[in-house]
Amino acid sequence: MNLRSPGPTPCPPDVLQAMGRQMIHHRSPAFAEIIGRVTDSLKQLFETKSDLFCLSCSGTGAMESMVVNTLSPGDRVLVVSIGVFGDRFATIAKTYGADVTKIDFDWGTAADPDAVAQALQKDGSYKAVCVTHNETSTGVTNDLEAIAAAVRRVQPTALLLVDAISSLGSIRCPVDAWDLDVVATGSQKGWMVPPGLAMVSVSERAWKAYEQSKMPRFYFDYGKAKEFLAKGQTPWTPAISLFYALDVALRQLVAEGIDGIVERHQRIADLTRTGVKSLGLELLADERCVSNTVTAVNVPEPIEWAKLYKLLQDEYDTLIEGGQGPLAGKIFRIGHLGWVTEKDIQVTIAALRGALPRLGYALPETAMA
Amino acid sequence: MNLRSPGPTPCPPDVLQAMGRQMIHHRSPAFAEIIGRVTDSLKQLFETKSDLFCLSCSGTGAMESMVVNTLSPGDRVLVVSIGVFGDRFATIAKTYGADVTKIDFDWGTAADPDAVAQALQKDGSYKAVCVTHNETSTGVTNDLEAIAAAVRRVQPTALLLVDAISSLGSIRCPVDAWDLDVVATGSQKGWMVPPGLAMVSVSERAWKAYEQSKMPRFYFDYGKAKEFLAKGQTPWTPAISLFYALDVALRQLVAEGIDGIVERHQRIADLTRTGVKSLGLELLADERCVSNTVTAVNVPEPIEWAKLYKLLQDEYDTLIEGGQGPLAGKIFRIGHLGWVTEKDIQVTIAALRGALPRLGYALPETAMA
Repeated sequence: MNLRSPGPTPCPPDVLQAMGRQMIHHRSPAFAEIIGRVTDSLKQLFETKSDLFCLSCSGTGAMESMVVNTLSPGDRVLVVSIGVFGDRFATIAKTYGADVTKIDFDWGTAADPDAVAQALQKDGSYKAVCVTHNETSTGVTNDLEAIAAAVRRVQPTALLLVDAISSLGSIRCPVDAWDLDVVATGSQKGWMVPPGLAMVSVSERAWKAYEQSKMPRFYFDYGKAKEFLAKGQTPWTPAISLFYALDVALRQLVAEGIDGIVERHQRIADLTRTGVKSLGLELLADERCVSNTVTAVNVPEPIEWAKLYKLLQDEYDTLIEGGQGPLAGKIFRIGHLGWVTEKDIQVTIAALRGALPRLGYALPETAMA
Repeated sequence: MNLRSPGPTPCPPDVLQAMGRQMIHHRSPAFAEIIGRVTDSLKQLFETKSDLFCLSCSGTGAMESMVVNTLSPGDRVLVVSIGVFGDRFATIAKTYGADVTKIDFDWGTAADPDAVAQALQKDGSYKAVCVTHNETSTGVTNDLEAIAAAVRRVQPTALLLVDAISSLGSIRCPVDAWDLDVVATGSQKGWMVPPGLAMVSVSERAWKAYEQSKMPRFYFDYGKAKEFLAKGQTPWTPAISLFYALDVALRQLVAEGIDGIVERHQRIADLTRTGVKSLGLELLADERCVSNTVTAVNVPEPIEWAKLYKLLQDEYDTLIEGGQGPLAGKIFRIGHLGWVTEKDIQVTIAALRGALPRLGYALPETAMA
């Protein structure tokens, strides 16, 4: 199966092989060695010297962890939303009693850093700004560097909580250089590992907020994670197999280096966009902010998405993902992060070129070859 | 490595092989088939017709989920504790604002159902009773049937929240027959699967409590889990590989049947206890309530636990686990749940027979052979 979802992504053979390793005990020296190495490598790729933890949960669990470890009920929070995952950030913060103001930008566009600054200027009492680096639902990458700089300019002490789930490990996100406070990603994205682990970095500023935070937390408690990581452990039994896999994947990623990883994702994203447009299709996202990990494409007339989804799987061995929420049926999304090559994209474009006309779509003449 | 911890436990080769399968998409028909089959099989072994969900987290996450989905801040909760995990249940409930009364029994003994009934009689306003079925920290199995009956007799509407993490799938725990409300277990215990998934069943009574519950929850929300399971999905990206593995393991467990599983654990536990006693060692637990999944053994004079732990790993390729909390250094624990055979136990006893005298322990004459 040519799995071209923006997560889970296919995993390299040696990563899958590591998944099949027999169990070791999670409080043994053997596990301490692995978690130590994994944590160090992740810090390199997060470009941070801060604490960093691996939590056994999905990315959504990591988003919840950011909220409950730094905030108290009633805290004012500005959530910058450009899609489903920005909205989810707001919902989580509200669920735990934060006083949430959401600033929305049209789906398919990026957040305007000046608008974020203005929102902060209107009211200086925000405790935190929550922002999505790469919005998986729309295929848009925010200019996080500019947003972070705008926040720091207007309200230097505000916490920056960043959903970098589908960017980190694929799109540059230098945590310390951009002065981000809590930054989360998930194993099934650029990291080339099956889902089940989330990784979060926690700045000094975030630790101060943790000390004051009154939201209830237990499973996701960063203080416990820190206490146990000092012993080479996790507070609760971790998803050991995923640590094996991440250990293998990180060796490859660290060897490739951040510049190499970022350049590869750029190159393959360019190829995807060129391929999609060669079929006469339109991107959902504004060209100035298109994502290098996922491309969202408008479903063209007269295609019914459900039929295309099924046909691609049944006869082209290719899975692409549909739209979420209000975009369901209106867009499809091609994932191109993690273990992805030019050939995977060529196969995907060829599958679309084959399937679309069978459902009544007229290919442009230039795509006929 | 002869891993004889009470979790993670070793996994059979075909289960490990399944862990190495390539990713599929978690919102595809292929995943719906797996989660459907896994859920049905789990219901058979939980002996329940209630809803049942797999959460991507450890057992502790599942404990938290039981609390936050059924209770509100201020609710009175009776926690029956016989060790570390009973205490943890109380801590989680307190963390989320429940009004917790803890009834403690000596570590190494089981809870007295009459004492539980009396505690409830003194105050009829308890919303829930939290109880550990099998206490992994002391090697004790509570008489859950009698405790549940006592609760129902005194306070028929109280919720029974059960940590069956190290019992279900090994020790009989018929959820519907005993009228238990929320019951949780973890993949790395009797289920022969690596850690990272927890499974919970949710009764009709628990759903009514859910509707009233005001504790904040998002990642662990049962309502979301139910809504998505109806579509053959999970609300958030699940640990797909662990579903593959659980699917394989459950085929074996369902084929063996509950009676077979329970009998096997009884037989191997008996062998463990006989073996340990043949070395002149004493069990921590009262013989009337010893666990069939984990045996806790008092560290004998003049043995230093840290040295025994290291020697067994370094020279006997065997890992057993130490005590937790106040029992650290005072006991060790042999796990015998999941994929375990008579031979594994014989090897473990032989390792102890070899290692203990090297650290100064005098074996009884009968153990010399």
